[in-house]
Amino acid sequence: MSDFSVTILGCGSAKPSLRHYTSAQIVNHRGNLFLIDCGEGVQRAMLHNGISMHKIGHIFLSHLHGDHCLGLVGLISTLGLGQRTGKIVIHACSDAETVFRPLFDFFCPQLSMEVEFQAFDHTKSEVIYEDRSLEVLTIPLHHRVPCAGFLFREKQKPRHLLVEECQKYNIPTAYYQSITLGNDWTDGNGTVIPNASLTTDPSPSKSYAYCSDTIYAESIVPVIKGCDLLYHEATFANDLAATAKERGHSTALEAGKIASLAQVKQLVIGHFSSRYDGDGETELLAEAKSVFENTELAKERKIFEL
Amino acid sequence: MSDFSVTILGCGSAKPSLRHYTSAQIVNHRGNLFLIDCGEGVQRAMLHNGISMHKIGHIFLSHLHGDHCLGLVGLISTLGLGQRTGKIVIHACSDAETVFRPLFDFFCPQLSMEVEFQAFDHTKSEVIYEDRSLEVLTIPLHHRVPCAGFLFREKQKPRHLLVEECQKYNIPTAYYQSITLGNDWTDGNGTVIPNASLTTDPSPSKSYAYCSDTIYAESIVPVIKGCDLLYHEATFANDLAATAKERGHSTALEAGKIASLAQVKQLVIGHFSSRYDGDGETELLAEAKSVFENTELAKERKIFEL
Repeated sequence: MSDFSVTILGCGSAKPSLRHYTSAQIVNHRGNLFLIDCGEGVQRAMLHNGISMHKIGHIFLSHLHGDHCLGLVGLISTLGLGQRTGKIVIHACSDAETVFRPLFDFFCPQLSMEVEFQAFDHTKSEVIYEDRSLEVLTIPLHHRVPCAGFLFREKQKPRHLLVEECQKYNIPTAYYQSITLGNDWTDGNGTVIPNASLTTDPSPSKSYAYCSDTIYAESIVPVIKGCDLLYHEATFANDLAATAKERGHSTALEAGKIASLAQVKQLVIGHFSSRYDGDGETELLAEAKSVFENTELAKERKIFEL
Repeated sequence: MSDFSVTILGCGSAKPSLRHYTSAQIVNHRGNLFLIDCGEGVQRAMLHNGISMHKIGHIFLSHLHGDHCLGLVGLISTLGLGQRTGKIVIHACSDAETVFRPLFDFFCPQLSMEVEFQAFDHTKSEVIYEDRSLEVLTIPLHHRVPCAGFLFREKQKPRHLLVEECQKYNIPTAYYQSITLGNDWTDGNGTVIPNASLTTDPSPSKSYAYCSDTIYAESIVPVIKGCDLLYHEATFANDLAATAKERGHSTALEAGKIASLAQVKQLVIGHFSSRYDGDGETELLAEAKSVFENTELAKERKIFEL
């Protein structure tokens, strides 16, 4: 298993169905769990997936439609009952704290942990989270309400050290980290050993883009360009393109077009309207594949490794 | 199938588990659907049971703990998207409107139906709903927050008409309804035909009591006395009686005692702590049965006919 994966907890749209839970996903990066969206039933979906909800440190809400956030109060309540300490950060548009803070106060007044809201500006792409190896950027989307997608992008990884080469030049191990960052080595005689002799290229940095909910918007292409995995909503088939646009959604064909324009490596489509059964979703897949071959359907419990 | 039944949608307590949904039930009385409590996942549970959520006219919330009401916004949102017209009434303590109205305004601003809150006083037993054949009374419970149970009680039914007897006395059919209500018939000669000659006793009126969440409280016995079916919470086994009391809950043994004192016909226990698996629940059942034999475990999708 890779150290960067996406688990689908729910990929249905607003109207409830037995096929799907509403929107929620877990991004696991080196054991750090990030929750994207938090539809009703998210706790049950995590139990189904064997995911320890207490390990979630950051929650990212794309927008404040119920099917993307109505599981939040129950989740925070459970975490707060379960000896979760420290802090949990909710990244969302500024209305989120106005809506949810009173609910946390009412339904879970004695939380064992701190809940912090960090508001983002959904109109521009900016870094809203970073740690040593990962950063998360917003992706401005176009929906009926303020909405952003999220780009999870690994930072450049350290170069691979050629230990035997370093030993040949008697480089002290204390300098190894500096060399993995690309620095040359100058020995006691002033001779410069170029970094290229001491290291090889690092593993590629991977990136994952979550884009839901949104109309077809080529404006997102520069932000997600070349990402390894793109989750793009495909609420409808293209015969309902007008409906999709009117409701702020995309069609499967449009998701494929975005994937193609952005030259991503793999596309996953989701946020399916409940009007589509298994056969209907197969048709959505075929539609997306007609413009972008490497496409998969989202499905609860599927894990996509980057 | 009878014309009065209770369908269990969820019978787990707050901490989520895969065994149970959180609290929710449907009372079906002659095709009128009443929802009692509305835990997260209630829509999915209704889909599992093939229940048409658009037929729900009245929702009764026992109290405002998340596991009894966090499915409400999603449900109202779905109903409001689904061409549900007319009015839906939410019976709850007075805080409910303060908490939920802003959420309805935010998450479902363009509802197709009216949502009315009717606040009840949880400290006394009073009729909060009635139609021609049924009334619903509150049952004051004792929990950590204001809380009431609900008694669904059929009104006295009309007496069975002996049509051939009526014809013998040449009673016009327009008077039949009056006779089923217990009136005598006086013929043209002033002779009184007693009602007992024209009718037989009506079918017995049935009643269902929902008591969750509550400590062991004998004060409810007079209200639920002799009811046909009692759902009583049994969050813990009796070895945790002190914990139960501290948290405002009952044990299975205590539920059995209440059923016995109230001389109900059947007891269903539910609201199980997630600490109990199948074997654990079997022990809860045995505990309740030790004082009240006619007890059953609640379980999602079980239907109890009255």
